Amino acid sequence: MSVTAPQGFRAAGVAAGLKSFGDPDVAVVVNDGPDDVAAAVFTTNRFPAAPVLWSKQVLAGGRVRAVVLNSGGANACTGPEGFQDTHATAEHAAAALGLGAIDVAVASTGLIGVRLPMDHLTAGVTAAVAALSADGGPAAARAIMTTDSVPKTTVQAREGWTVGGMAKGAGMLAPSLATMLVVLTTDAVVPAEVLEPALRHATAHSFERVDSDGCLSTNDTVVVLANGASGVTPTAEELGAALDAACLDLAMQLLADAEGSTKDIAITVRGAATVQDALTAGRACARNNLLKTALFGNDPNWGRVLAAIGTTDAAFEAGRVDVTINGVTVCRGGAIGDDRDGVDLTGRAITIDVDLAAGTEQATIWTNDLSIAYVHENSAYST
Amino acid sequence: MSVTAPQGFRAAGVAAGLKSFGDPDVAVVVNDGPDDVAAAVFTTNRFPAAPVLWSKQVLAGGRVRAVVLNSGGANACTGPEGFQDTHATAEHAAAALGLGAIDVAVASTGLIGVRLPMDHLTAGVTAAVAALSADGGPAAARAIMTTDSVPKTTVQAREGWTVGGMAKGAGMLAPSLATMLVVLTTDAVVPAEVLEPALRHATAHSFERVDSDGCLSTNDTVVVLANGASGVTPTAEELGAALDAACLDLAMQLLADAEGSTKDIAITVRGAATVQDALTAGRACARNNLLKTALFGNDPNWGRVLAAIGTTDAAFEAGRVDVTINGVTVCRGGAIGDDRDGVDLTGRAITIDVDLAAGTEQATIWTNDLSIAYVHENSAYST
Repeated sequence: MSVTAPQGFRAAGVAAGLKSFGDPDVAVVVNDGPDDVAAAVFTTNRFPAAPVLWSKQVLAGGRVRAVVLNSGGANACTGPEGFQDTHATAEHAAAALGLGAIDVAVASTGLIGVRLPMDHLTAGVTAAVAALSADGGPAAARAIMTTDSVPKTTVQAREGWTVGGMAKGAGMLAPSLATMLVVLTTDAVVPAEVLEPALRHATAHSFERVDSDGCLSTNDTVVVLANGASGVTPTAEELGAALDAACLDLAMQLLADAEGSTKDIAITVRGAATVQDALTAGRACARNNLLKTALFGNDPNWGRVLAAIGTTDAAFEAGRVDVTINGVTVCRGGAIGDDRDGVDLTGRAITIDVDLAAGTEQATIWTNDLSIAYVHENSAYST
Repeated sequence: MSVTAPQGFRAAGVAAGLKSFGDPDVAVVVNDGPDDVAAAVFTTNRFPAAPVLWSKQVLAGGRVRAVVLNSGGANACTGPEGFQDTHATAEHAAAALGLGAIDVAVASTGLIGVRLPMDHLTAGVTAAVAALSADGGPAAARAIMTTDSVPKTTVQAREGWTVGGMAKGAGMLAPSLATMLVVLTTDAVVPAEVLEPALRHATAHSFERVDSDGCLSTNDTVVVLANGASGVTPTAEELGAALDAACLDLAMQLLADAEGSTKDIAITVRGAATVQDALTAGRACARNNLLKTALFGNDPNWGRVLAAIGTTDAAFEAGRVDVTINGVTVCRGGAIGDDRDGVDLTGRAITIDVDLAAGTEQATIWTNDLSIAYVHENSAYST
């Protein structure tokens, strides 16, 4: 049921002709209240897309009534004209919904550096508003897909209240969010001062630790809407746990559908002096093309793990680092460990466990292998 | 003539059985004096290979008489036993040459995490010493190749003195040197206090600005030997210019032979507030897999250039950045510029010119595209 699993939300997804082949490409999610509490996290890229600039403004007040999303065009690096397009989109949706533009967040995804065909987009918004329904969650999830092979949704049901969500994203998965658009909804009663930090914690421990290809997008947006329709007020801990679960569920779906990937790789760095050290070391592995190609080739090339970690400033002594791949400690004390031939990499799931022997902290970064299909897909994307 | 172009140097390359297929894999370069001034630059990777640890020690005194190099095994991450192997190699070569082990630098390249077959290696050193000749430069250059498709040599002839050199390296090309072994020789009269800074300047402006795949190796070594046999004493400027030219020549040969590459990409960032900003922004582009795959696909996807630069802390305003690809300014003021269809990317050489409009400094980073062949070659490397 996606974003319409909680009470008091309607959604729709329609084909407006932004994409070739007539696939759905415009989605609208509406919060029917009674509350209209909202929070969001955006890309840290210094070339934020027009819809990111717009949505940051409207969400600054901690409230929003609707979200308009489109695939088929990122409206990024499109200058003042692109921002006017986003503003016009919000105005058009607001008029159709009987709201003000300030009540409407906008999110876009697709090719950077191309203006959106506004006539198609506004017609699509009109059609989507007309199609809004309490069963529209799945259609909305399909309409935001780009190179995604499957729609991504989550439902976290609790005692009398629910968190629902949808996500898109299959490439440019990198720190400070992947290239992705995420809308979360809940019918719990949640004050703004509780919702915002809960969302930040949930994204920091899920989307921000997925680093599929090291490329940070210009459009990343995660929005959560809370309407209190259930009348239930969970504790901050209960709400946080539900948002954590929803974001992690969606993040793992993003990882599993990453462009051209054949492996889901969980790199856990333990024995770190700080969590930041663990994240830095894990990310260095997730960004190392030689390691990622080796794993694509089912090669437990632990030397490339050390070579990657060796480029970081994380605290460790070279002679004390252990590396375990799928349960086999192939590197002990920075040198040759157990027989690498004992490592089975034929499955999709790969775990790399690095022990820095420098402390008690740990963190996990999730990534994918670097495959021939990834290169093919991304070399042909816009041509 | 490679490293034997200057007077007073002998070299050899032989097949010792470290590589399969019986390719040459052991090289020796000897300085016959009269001087034995030397300097070196090594990888900054925190898991330096055994030969790097050894050669740092022997070169600390600013002098060395010979360099032993092997392909077919990096002797990296091999622990104390690996260091003993390197020490034994130097001892063996020293005995054969009538020198002390302290006079012999060692460099290795190949797979990480595997011990060297010492019986083959020492036999190869014996054979190489027996084969030393003033014409042996080309043979030595061939013996240090790994995935290189061609040997890489340079000769810089000056008035009465010469700089010669050889290099290997075709992958793991990254900052703070590529995965590469380089030996430079000169018959100029050069005091140690002149040679060392000249080598640092030359490497900083050549090898350290080649970032083919962002992966920093454990074995990178650049050694320069100066014997004064010509009796000519160039000025520090003249020597520096010759070393700069030799290193840039070799660096461009590394770039042109990078694993699986189909494009040589020069990313020049100008209008930067500092040279470091220019290098940071250029390197972010060189590391961006989505940009590198787009270029492999002949796609002038300038949005990926901005997305990459947008992840850095370089000084710029998003609305003032221009991007020119092969002469076409496809992005102006951070937005859509001239028609991208006018960009011809069918050749091997690609120039990306980024103007940050934030200052007067500039720098160039050289990289390659990310091709299907790169993935294939590196996924099959050790299996």
